[in-house]
Amino acid sequence: TALMPAYATNMRLKFPILALILEIITIILFAVFVDYDDGKGHGHDSHSNSSETHHEEKPMDLYPMFQDVHVMIFIGFGFLMTFLKRYGFSSVGINLLLAAFGLQWGLLMQGVWHLVDGKIKINIFKIINADFSTATVLISFGAVLGKTSPVQLLIMTILEITIFSINEHLVATVLEANDVGASMIIHAYGAYFGLAVARVLYRPGLRNGHENEGSVYHSDLFAMIGTVFLWMFWPSFNSAIADPGLTQLTAVINTYLSLAACVLSAYAISSLVEHKGKLDMVHIQNATLAGGVAVGTCADMNIGPFGAMLIGLVAGIISTLGFKFLSPILASSVGIQDTCGVHNLHGMPGILGGLAGIVAVSLGKKEGGDPVMQAAALASSLGFALVGGAVTGFIMKLPFWGQPPDQNCYDDSLYWENEESLAHADHSKNKAEV
Amino acid sequence: TALMPAYATNMRLKFPILALILEIITIILFAVFVDYDDGKGHGHDSHSNSSETHHEEKPMDLYPMFQDVHVMIFIGFGFLMTFLKRYGFSSVGINLLLAAFGLQWGLLMQGVWHLVDGKIKINIFKIINADFSTATVLISFGAVLGKTSPVQLLIMTILEITIFSINEHLVATVLEANDVGASMIIHAYGAYFGLAVARVLYRPGLRNGHENEGSVYHSDLFAMIGTVFLWMFWPSFNSAIADPGLTQLTAVINTYLSLAACVLSAYAISSLVEHKGKLDMVHIQNATLAGGVAVGTCADMNIGPFGAMLIGLVAGIISTLGFKFLSPILASSVGIQDTCGVHNLHGMPGILGGLAGIVAVSLGKKEGGDPVMQAAALASSLGFALVGGAVTGFIMKLPFWGQPPDQNCYDDSLYWENEESLAHADHSKNKAEV
Amino acid sequence: TALMPAYATNMRLKFPILALILEIITIILFAVFVDYDDGKGHGHDSHSNSSETHHEEKPMDLYPMFQDVHVMIFIGFGFLMTFLKRYGFSSVGINLLLAAFGLQWGLLMQGVWHLVDGKIKINIFKIINADFSTATVLISFGAVLGKTSPVQLLIMTILEITIFSINEHLVATVLEANDVGASMIIHAYGAYFGLAVARVLYRPGLRNGHENEGSVYHSDLFAMIGTVFLWMFWPSFNSAIADPGLTQLTAVINTYLSLAACVLSAYAISSLVEHKGKLDMVHIQNATLAGGVAVGTCADMNIGPFGAMLIGLVAGIISTLGFKFLSPILASSVGIQDTCGVHNLHGMPGILGGLAGIVAVSLGKKEGGDPVMQAAALASSLGFALVGGAVTGFIMKLPFWGQPPDQNCYDDSLYWENEESLAHADHSKNKAEV
Repeated sequence: TALMPAYATNMRLKFPILALILEIITIILFAVFVDYDDGKGHGHDSHSNSSETHHEEKPMDLYPMFQDVHVMIFIGFGFLMTFLKRYGFSSVGINLLLAAFGLQWGLLMQGVWHLVDGKIKINIFKIINADFSTATVLISFGAVLGKTSPVQLLIMTILEITIFSINEHLVATVLEANDVGASMIIHAYGAYFGLAVARVLYRPGLRNGHENEGSVYHSDLFAMIGTVFLWMFWPSFNSAIADPGLTQLTAVINTYLSLAACVLSAYAISSLVEHKGKLDMVHIQNATLAGGVAVGTCADMNIGPFGAMLIGLVAGIISTLGFKFLSPILASSVGIQDTCGVHNLHGMPGILGGLAGIVAVSLGKKEGGDPVMQAAALASSLGFALVGGAVTGFIMKLPFWGQPPDQNCYDDSLYWENEESLAHADHSKNKAEV
Repeated sequence: TALMPAYATNMRLKFPILALILEIITIILFAVFVDYDDGKGHGHDSHSNSSETHHEEKPMDLYPMFQDVHVMIFIGFGFLMTFLKRYGFSSVGINLLLAAFGLQWGLLMQGVWHLVDGKIKINIFKIINADFSTATVLISFGAVLGKTSPVQLLIMTILEITIFSINEHLVATVLEANDVGASMIIHAYGAYFGLAVARVLYRPGLRNGHENEGSVYHSDLFAMIGTVFLWMFWPSFNSAIADPGLTQLTAVINTYLSLAACVLSAYAISSLVEHKGKLDMVHIQNATLAGGVAVGTCADMNIGPFGAMLIGLVAGIISTLGFKFLSPILASSVGIQDTCGVHNLHGMPGILGGLAGIVAVSLGKKEGGDPVMQAAALASSLGFALVGGAVTGFIMKLPFWGQPPDQNCYDDSLYWENEESLAHADHSKNKAEV
Repeated sequence: TALMPAYATNMRLKFPILALILEIITIILFAVFVDYDDGKGHGHDSHSNSSETHHEEKPMDLYPMFQDVHVMIFIGFGFLMTFLKRYGFSSVGINLLLAAFGLQWGLLMQGVWHLVDGKIKINIFKIINADFSTATVLISFGAVLGKTSPVQLLIMTILEITIFSINEHLVATVLEANDVGASMIIHAYGAYFGLAVARVLYRPGLRNGHENEGSVYHSDLFAMIGTVFLWMFWPSFNSAIADPGLTQLTAVINTYLSLAACVLSAYAISSLVEHKGKLDMVHIQNATLAGGVAVGTCADMNIGPFGAMLIGLVAGIISTLGFKFLSPILASSVGIQDTCGVHNLHGMPGILGGLAGIVAVSLGKKEGGDPVMQAAALASSLGFALVGGAVTGFIMKLPFWGQPPDQNCYDDSLYWENEESLAHADHSKNKAEV
């Protein structure tokens, strides 16, 4: 790819045509298959396959939860990735693009399993799940951040959400496994899908790093906007589709406490492993969130507040150690260049969450749970992720999707016009700019 | 104005006196006319003039909706305008000032039409509408951003909200037109009001641009905070005062989908019209929101999910093309220097929303709707905006409001003290600053 | 401290060990004492010691309020303090650390007064109060910002929350005083606690200021994120634990209006006292919030909308004047170096709030209120703050907590690893960075 001619990254025709065609096809599919939920169907089909009857619900009851999740998807994921010094436009901007398309695609792909009179009936529960489906793509985006074109990423969005919906249906409806906060079906799936793509798209030319693959002071602060919004609203992520009432309260409290404990262990380990006991922004931006990922599967189970905190404590330790010791090895020895370290934030903590779920169900913490099905759900999520990600990676590797040459990786100026005006502004910097 | 002596921009007496007098008068008016709503009046008088009886509501039911709208007003509008490299303090800071005063003024102006026992009774519904009334001012602020003094803008706030309240009353109560998401009465009104002001305040000296009228890398990222918060919470804006239940759900879903479709078309057209198929931050920051504006009038109508998406698709196209092709013509040939391009984000999409409303009502998508009244509402909103804006512009043009000379436009340092310390910091930049 | 050897600030062992031990002890205490609230206890024991019976509540009713408060604690306080040019990592990052530990500690300390069957039963009401308890620490953090190590601050967190919980119990349960928005028990307490600590930790070497104790353009914009989120969600802060229904509505409206009026007076006075009538970012970032603090105690009282606005108006004036005239005197003559000016934002407005509460209760604005008890509550809060802060300050002054030498104050690079990479980035700035 390093020898690819510069015009190959020109998106003038490829990107607009792909984006418009996708949107028009989507609108046609919506015209045929999608309608508002007038409440006359047979109620919500809970993600967490609960056997409880949902209480009498009003159409907007879940709306505040939806908005919290919405903020996580668009501000949380978007700004978390702005840590790179020259890739903030793409981080926030392409995040918005992929999520905006993904939620439409997710509504269709998740909806086909639950047709009512041949229609997908949209309600708040459905748009929460649509937002969730995009999270898998945004996690994978983190693994390949800076090394892919918008065209490649739109293709990844279609494929990843399609495969996600199959696995989600298998896990929730066939296996009837518990995964209320989606440690397995979103976090582990999204991470390993992205890592498989990253492996296929391995760039030997970036073996020794890249001058743009780092942060500057203010880019790290922008990233903290993402971190803190994710951290704050994670209790909503893990409880949004829980059974109403005490179960939902349990999911909130477990997530709140797991995250709080995780902050302490992430800070402690960061200081322990870094030069002179200092803290590392990469760890703080990411590992503080691992507790939310890891407590996901058993968030709505009766694991006790201290149980949630233990999970968070361990997640913060694993995640920080992963950034410090494992990521460099994955890059140098396994050929996985994981830009945002999604393996440490979503991959390992997601597996930890799946394992914690198996243990918790074994201990009877969830009525009707079956540890074998939990294990099958974890295996299924990892399997779909790795195979799906590898196939998707090979499709993304086809040489006509406008992927950036090595020297232009991690650089907005390849795909964003304003960079020219920026360059211009740079020249006049001595006059006015900070 | 270019020859105006520098001291003319000194706000030491004008601004504090005006601000304090306005606030004291407002407090006196509140003492006489305003009280809490104890729920014993005759219920909410819905903006969307519904004939349905509101179900039994609790006083705080709408509070989460209010907070979403509140975030749009103060973070959304405020940060959206921080894209200018030297005008971020004013964008966020004057936005806060105008909205804080405007919501008080709006409570009075909107309230006088609905007195109960001679009192304006405040509840959550009323403060949502008060926030809405400030949106008109913040839209107009975008048209004159960088070229007006805080004193001028406070005057604009008083006049614009007063006139808005008259038009709103006419549209909602007299014409009984539908405009749940306020495409006409807020977006089109605010945009054309601001454009009329901008026309009157035309500055020939800025014909060839200004060195500060551009962005830098991080200012564009700050602006994306505004964009994304507006984008996420727009479903709340369009549904906040909808009838509870399924109608409100419809408004949420239509807005959610219109915005999602709009993102795809805005990105596609931006890439299509820009150099080498690149994306332009100005388009992404603004045109991605046009779908929320355009679906406003018929957000609560049964237009079908695909109908909402079509509206969003078209809005994204029109808005992006407007930024690329129309704004330069307006500036050069019509004498309208529209700093933020509010014509493209609020003006044309607002009219599109009004037209879509006429069509939807004609097709019977809203029970009791009348397309003639919808058309009259659109005409009324445009008429009040253009005439009101022109009159307001002439008042703002009076030479003693401390307006900035051309060379100090788009520059915080004229009105903000910290600029000096900034200049100081600039000098020591080589030591420590990024 | 200026002669302290550099290695003394090495946190490699001290910080990780302290953080991990604290977390493990906390988890053990949670395992023994804490459980989910299954709703079978004897209901909420309201902070505002209301005698009304709480209506039938669902477990998640307060969740949107909780999330608003959560945003204030983590985004609001965190970003408000990022105004310093070289201390943004610590502002947001240590804010997260202290709040994450503090909420766990607060759950324990507040919970011991309300055991049910020997257990602390967690629900949304309890986690709101836990978040509240951390606010005291974050306020005090503002007073010592830039001059303390993370180890010192963790110690302060433990002590301050412990003492807070005693005073809160005294005020709410023994004195039965009203303080729904916590002007006294959070704002005044947190401010004077922090000021007492700052007095004990007085650094003569910083008498003439420090080159890093200032802002740059973009750091002031980051701080405005904090300001605006605090401003927007303050109605939730003051009403979160109010009695449901009309009382809660009153608290929302009073806070909304007080803050709006406060903006006008803060802007007016800032312009009045500054050079050439300009506005000062320090005032705008802080004094605009004083209205939320000052209306806290009587937010849920029937003081009338105009009463709330008067309180806000006065608070904005006092706060701005405090920043301009009092803070320099406190620093030079009293030896209190109050980095963020918490005396002006939380101290004086908190006392004003307490006094307003005494007056309002005297005037019969709160059923069952007793002005003597209100006065006792204010005195108690100030007493616990000053004595507790002084004692805590002496403990924090012990020479082995890794406090920064004078020359490294207000500088992230002492405790954050990424500063090195930043320095590196600085060198290559001419190439690519803004």
